Amino acid sequence: MSKLKVYADRISQPSRAVLIFCKVNGIDFEEVRIDLAEGQHKSPQFQEINPMEQVPAIVDGRFKLFESHAILRYLAYTFPGIPDHWYPTDVSSQAKINSILDWHHSNLRVGGVRLVLNSALGPTLGLPLDPQAAAKAEKLVVSSLSKIETVWLRGDGKFLLGSSRPSIADLSLVCEIMQLEILDETVRDRIFGPREKVRRWIQNLKDATSPHFEQVHETLYEVKERLKREATPVKLKSKL
Amino acid sequence: MSKLKVYADRISQPSRAVLIFCKVNGIDFEEVRIDLAEGQHKSPQFQEINPMEQVPAIVDGRFKLFESHAILRYLAYTFPGIPDHWYPTDVSSQAKINSILDWHHSNLRVGGVRLVLNSALGPTLGLPLDPQAAAKAEKLVVSSLSKIETVWLRGDGKFLLGSSRPSIADLSLVCEIMQLEILDETVRDRIFGPREKVRRWIQNLKDATSPHFEQVHETLYEVKERLKREATPVKLKSKL
Repeated sequence: MSKLKVYADRISQPSRAVLIFCKVNGIDFEEVRIDLAEGQHKSPQFQEINPMEQVPAIVDGRFKLFESHAILRYLAYTFPGIPDHWYPTDVSSQAKINSILDWHHSNLRVGGVRLVLNSALGPTLGLPLDPQAAAKAEKLVVSSLSKIETVWLRGDGKFLLGSSRPSIADLSLVCEIMQLEILDETVRDRIFGPREKVRRWIQNLKDATSPHFEQVHETLYEVKERLKREATPVKLKSKL
Repeated sequence: MSKLKVYADRISQPSRAVLIFCKVNGIDFEEVRIDLAEGQHKSPQFQEINPMEQVPAIVDGRFKLFESHAILRYLAYTFPGIPDHWYPTDVSSQAKINSILDWHHSNLRVGGVRLVLNSALGPTLGLPLDPQAAAKAEKLVVSSLSKIETVWLRGDGKFLLGSSRPSIADLSLVCEIMQLEILDETVRDRIFGPREKVRRWIQNLKDATSPHFEQVHETLYEVKERLKREATPVKLKSKL
């Protein structure tokens, strides 16, 4: 059987989650870069892999799959030797993880993408910055982080399920939050300043997935530096 | 062990999906109405059930769960006698269903909710109708339905996985589409006129879940009639 292929762009937060998962768990895979800025996700070749024109996507033998949460569940379930804590076989733990992953889409994900787009990355995609949309998105990010603290991080556990080891839900949500790195420091301070539990949780995930977490995030840190440095917009034409 | 409790409002599309699933599969459950129009989802009592203040949610013994997709997976997995086609034990079928359910959140779900809100239900919630937002949402609904036809309904199968029996993905997506019933006939004709495969698929699901599908949708048909009939907005204060 041929090696697992992961089609990804490290500037995409769900791509990073899948890449980190594979690396941390020693999965033998090939990373195929789909350059979003070059529009490679819209090429006929990639449409054969994922007709939805999004990264990440995987090909495992003859099996093709898209959507990062579906991919994380599939990898955790089918690859040998993946520690149980990532997606426990225990029914209620698994259901709770699914519940967090499903909740994520309409909350942190929507808020995060819109906040980054409307307050930082817009011009690089030919879109104007929209302070009103940014303010609305920031409100959703803040309320989402507040829910994370009061619902899932309310106890003493290091991770969302209250346990000492991370799950695929921790990985997906933290990778989304990391995208906010490219916002202005003042905005970041406003969002994360009062969120000590969230800050500790992010650090716990970094520690649990070191050194892969920081390595896979290098692309994001580079974009952040270029955004700071350059007066002209960073080239990044397509949507994240 | 006490009976499964399903907290739902039949005006909510994910609530309907869970209710229909329970009824079709003969699950012994108690439906607890959470009246969204009365703001009951924000009451302290309901926050104890679901801190996210959304329906549907379930309580199974001492186990609480929210998010409709997580609930559907959990019920299909844990209740005895549920036919395998709803959420097959086969790994690749299950992964494909997860992929459809995850895709749904940022596509048909977002488009559908915004279209209904900005072109029909807004005033009943104290919001103005927004034709520009409605047009944008309609575009997302149309592109989502187009993807459904070309990706999942491209073969001769009756349902999204290409098979002759429905899965929880069919149920979730069709219940979302049904919300568009309350739009003007001209808008509906524009959206569904060219989508013969989608129309056939919806009918297939209705047939496969009869009579529960139509019974659970009666509330929606009533709202539609009231919207048509009354000059004053239908009382429906909270978000769907």
